[in-house]
Amino acid sequence: MFKLLPLKENFLPNGFFLDGIKAGLKKDGFDLGFIYSNSICDVSALFTTNRFQAAPIKHFKKHNIQKTNFVLANSKNANAMTGKRGIEDIEDILDYLKSKFNNIKNPIMSSTGVIGAPLPKEKIKKGIESFNLNNKNLSNFAKSIMTTDTFEKRVSFKVELEDRRSFTITGIAKGAGMINPALATMLCFIITDANIPKEDMDELLAKNAEDSFNAISVDGDRSTNDTVLLLSNKRSGVYDKEAFDFALKEVMHYLALQIVKDGEGAKKLVGFEISGAKDNNEAKTAAKALANSALVKTAIFGEDPNWGRVASTIGASKVECYEDRLTISFEDILVYDKGEILFTKEIEEKAHQIMKRDEFTIKCDLGIGDGRFKAFGCDLSYEYVKINAEYRT
Amino acid sequence: MFKLLPLKENFLPNGFFLDGIKAGLKKDGFDLGFIYSNSICDVSALFTTNRFQAAPIKHFKKHNIQKTNFVLANSKNANAMTGKRGIEDIEDILDYLKSKFNNIKNPIMSSTGVIGAPLPKEKIKKGIESFNLNNKNLSNFAKSIMTTDTFEKRVSFKVELEDRRSFTITGIAKGAGMINPALATMLCFIITDANIPKEDMDELLAKNAEDSFNAISVDGDRSTNDTVLLLSNKRSGVYDKEAFDFALKEVMHYLALQIVKDGEGAKKLVGFEISGAKDNNEAKTAAKALANSALVKTAIFGEDPNWGRVASTIGASKVECYEDRLTISFEDILVYDKGEILFTKEIEEKAHQIMKRDEFTIKCDLGIGDGRFKAFGCDLSYEYVKINAEYRT
Repeated sequence: MFKLLPLKENFLPNGFFLDGIKAGLKKDGFDLGFIYSNSICDVSALFTTNRFQAAPIKHFKKHNIQKTNFVLANSKNANAMTGKRGIEDIEDILDYLKSKFNNIKNPIMSSTGVIGAPLPKEKIKKGIESFNLNNKNLSNFAKSIMTTDTFEKRVSFKVELEDRRSFTITGIAKGAGMINPALATMLCFIITDANIPKEDMDELLAKNAEDSFNAISVDGDRSTNDTVLLLSNKRSGVYDKEAFDFALKEVMHYLALQIVKDGEGAKKLVGFEISGAKDNNEAKTAAKALANSALVKTAIFGEDPNWGRVASTIGASKVECYEDRLTISFEDILVYDKGEILFTKEIEEKAHQIMKRDEFTIKCDLGIGDGRFKAFGCDLSYEYVKINAEYRT
Repeated sequence: MFKLLPLKENFLPNGFFLDGIKAGLKKDGFDLGFIYSNSICDVSALFTTNRFQAAPIKHFKKHNIQKTNFVLANSKNANAMTGKRGIEDIEDILDYLKSKFNNIKNPIMSSTGVIGAPLPKEKIKKGIESFNLNNKNLSNFAKSIMTTDTFEKRVSFKVELEDRRSFTITGIAKGAGMINPALATMLCFIITDANIPKEDMDELLAKNAEDSFNAISVDGDRSTNDTVLLLSNKRSGVYDKEAFDFALKEVMHYLALQIVKDGEGAKKLVGFEISGAKDNNEAKTAAKALANSALVKTAIFGEDPNWGRVASTIGASKVECYEDRLTISFEDILVYDKGEILFTKEIEEKAHQIMKRDEFTIKCDLGIGDGRFKAFGCDLSYEYVKINAEYRT
């Protein structure tokens, strides 16, 4: 048995320090931040499956970083498609960082923003000079990695075991655009003082990504920079695998949903729950097809219970399915039942009322096997088009 | 040697008659049409790959139709997800049709419109009563299959061989929404009096679909009803395989581009030309990923030469690609050259000017092999969101 206690602002895992500053990368606003641990951490990482991985990811892999005590993060510039220079810029910046703070070991850099422009190195170096490694400002760090995000995404839990010993876990993320269903699709940093072995870190991070970051979609695109980092400095000396797994799942699931809620132009958080699929993989394929369909997403924006588009999208996703086995519900309102169309004016109105909510679930049972998956998506609005048509460098 | 002569209105292949009427399925407008040949035709067909094929497709397959002289088409109702009743409704309507016109053999039905509502059988039967099988009104037929289309899509060629003998080919299509890159993705009817053998019909229809209907995308969705039919009554007695292949390609390519141009809310017709891919399949994967990317499509709407999104989308498509081999151009303006970013303010402005055009091509060379493919897509506009958010039955 264990307890999960949500923590207030700036109650961080032991030994961790965070802050964000305004380094002038953005016209105004926080754009450069750090995570620092005063003792060395194991690190586990998940990266985008995009073939064009950004320079920070290449840098991480080049140095095969296993232990670190520092993450330098910036927004506004993704340092992607910047070739060798992108990596050299990182090395130059991190050398400078180490020359300023001699207790930093194997620092990691993480970037988000515009693709294809060189890093503004001098601004970043200047920003580094003003870092205070004694600061614990979770909010400023969360702000420093935001791009088109409209709110900060962060969460902390104290995890108390039966014997009252405890550890702490904190997660911070950014999302908004280019959120897609194939891996990380955003920046996410999770820090903990749990005494977790490295192999459990790798295992639990990968496992919990599946139902969280891999289950969400804003626009079906996949960034060059998607990164999830888990850092543990073991300082609590406490660990319980089951409890940590549970807490990590809560952190990742919460942050993933916050990202969808803050999807560019999105007003609604919609669950796409597939059951009865041939297997879990097929359920995932169908659920993500729904979360990615422009026609389904515009119907959600229009609050139109257009179950025909839902059916058509499942049929187009190539999973095994049959007209006379499929059921479709908007929450508990059944509109299509194994070949029978229950979509009277009254039912349509009930389903429409459900779609007026900020959050709801569309449930489809394929009636074949035990496979199930729940994906999360949002509506496709005028605002999405506006944000992305006018996003110039 | 052969000549392709574009034909004016209502100059149809010998022995074919077409018309469209207002049967009251739409509040106003043409909604029921026919294609009739006074001698029997061979028929070749391509259908959607959606698992939920609509009743007209199931009916065609159930009766394994090889020869016919009549196609009955309607808009407003897709007769999809309508189960057994959907097929029974078609059989009932076609029995009625045959009882009214005793020279009709193996009629085919084809439908487009809302999914999941039963066919308005009585309206259709009443409409059939007013058919005049001597009419040759190509325009009315083209109108009768339109849904959110804003203009008619039709084209006719007389194909003259070296010895001055000739045959005629006519194509009519509808598109607008749910146009996607995996097969037909619309209704298209092609009629000819060429004396083409059945095996050539099957071969050439499939071959030419690849670079036409399979190369276009409006929104990445795939309909339950997509159908391409080719009917030949052999009445000209004339045939030349090379000439027919060329003419069919022209007809299909023209109609496919008309469909993209009339994509819901679309203002721009954009070619996505991939060369230097590992093979043609990989080129197709990358080209279609670009045509389907919401971020690329909104950038096109915003006339923003956001080459970073182009690169990121190619990288996300999982094809083999390398930063230091890729080149990206907007028409002839090179913006990214094998790792080198050429995107100065001046180049950006030039690329922006190209994107202001109604039609342009984005060209990417992967620098790996000989694979190439050109896909066609359009922008994602406010209008697309509006049309699809407000499309209620």
